[in-house]
Amino acid sequence: MANQYDPHTHQNLWLWLKLFKVSSAIEVTLQERLRHQCKTTLPRFDVMAALDHHPRGLRMNELSRYLRVSNSNVTGIIERLVQDNLVERIRVNKDRRATQARLTHEGFANFAATAYHHAVWVDELLGSLNENEANPMVSLLQKIEPNNIGN
Amino acid sequence: MANQYDPHTHQNLWLWLKLFKVSSAIEVTLQERLRHQCKTTLPRFDVMAALDHHPRGLRMNELSRYLRVSNSNVTGIIERLVQDNLVERIRVNKDRRATQARLTHEGFANFAATAYHHAVWVDELLGSLNENEANPMVSLLQKIEPNNIGN
Repeated sequence: MANQYDPHTHQNLWLWLKLFKVSSAIEVTLQERLRHQCKTTLPRFDVMAALDHHPRGLRMNELSRYLRVSNSNVTGIIERLVQDNLVERIRVNKDRRATQARLTHEGFANFAATAYHHAVWVDELLGSLNENEANPMVSLLQKIEPNNIGN
Repeated sequence: MANQYDPHTHQNLWLWLKLFKVSSAIEVTLQERLRHQCKTTLPRFDVMAALDHHPRGLRMNELSRYLRVSNSNVTGIIERLVQDNLVERIRVNKDRRATQARLTHEGFANFAATAYHHAVWVDELLGSLNENEANPMVSLLQKIEPNNIGN
C-alpha cells in the first residue's frame, strides 16, 4: 500500500518500520538474556537502575514519576526486591508515614553485576556502528524525540 | 553507573536509551490513536497489512511466520476480523482441510483508510527529519539489524 504515498511519507514509513524492528529485536534479546543469565526482568532492572542513580533512596511516587510507570507496578517490584534483600524501606525524616526505597549493599552489588552484563550486551548488539556513526544517530533520535512527548 | 565504562560502551548505552525511548513513544502514540480514532489495535493493523500485501490470501501458518507472532494470536485476531466482515476464510485448492484468510471488499477499504491515517501520523511523528536525515538513519538501522536476529 505504501507506494500510493508521496516519496517523503513512504521514506518515513520505511524509517519507522526499521526503527521499530531494530528496537524491538534489541529489547527482546536483552529481556531474554536478563531473564536467563541474571534471573531478572527489564522493569526490575530499570527500578534498580533508578535506585542506583539515587543512592539515598526514593519514595514510591518519585520512582513512579521517574520511570513513568504506574505506582502499583513499582510497588509490586519493590516488594519482591525487599523479599530478595536487594532493597530496604527506610523512614523519611519528619514524616512518620512516608518511606523510601533504597538499595541494600547486596542490591548495589547485584545491580553493578547485572548492569555490567547489560552494557556488554548493548555494546555487542550495537557494535556494528563505529563512533562516527553512533553520535549522528543519537542526534537524529534527539531531533525526533520532542515530537512524541505528550501525544 | 555508566561512567565506569569505556567511552564507546557509554556511547552505545546512551544510543540504546534514546533508540528505545523514541521507538516506545512513537509506538504508544500510534497505538492510542489507532484505538481511539480507528477502533483497532497495532497487532490487528499488522495482520490486515499482511493480508493487504497478499490480496489472494494467506494460510494461518504463513501469516504467523510472516508476522513472527504465534499461531494462536493470529487465529484470535482473524476470528474477530471475520466477525466484523473484514476477513473471509476461503478453501485452498486440492486441500480440503486447509483454509486461507483473505480481506473482504470491506476489509480492503477499511485497511486503506486506517493505513492512510497511520501514514499521516508516522509522517507527523518523524516529520522533524528531512530527507537528507531520514535516509542515513535507515542505513544505520540496517547496519545494526543483522546483529539482533536469532539471538
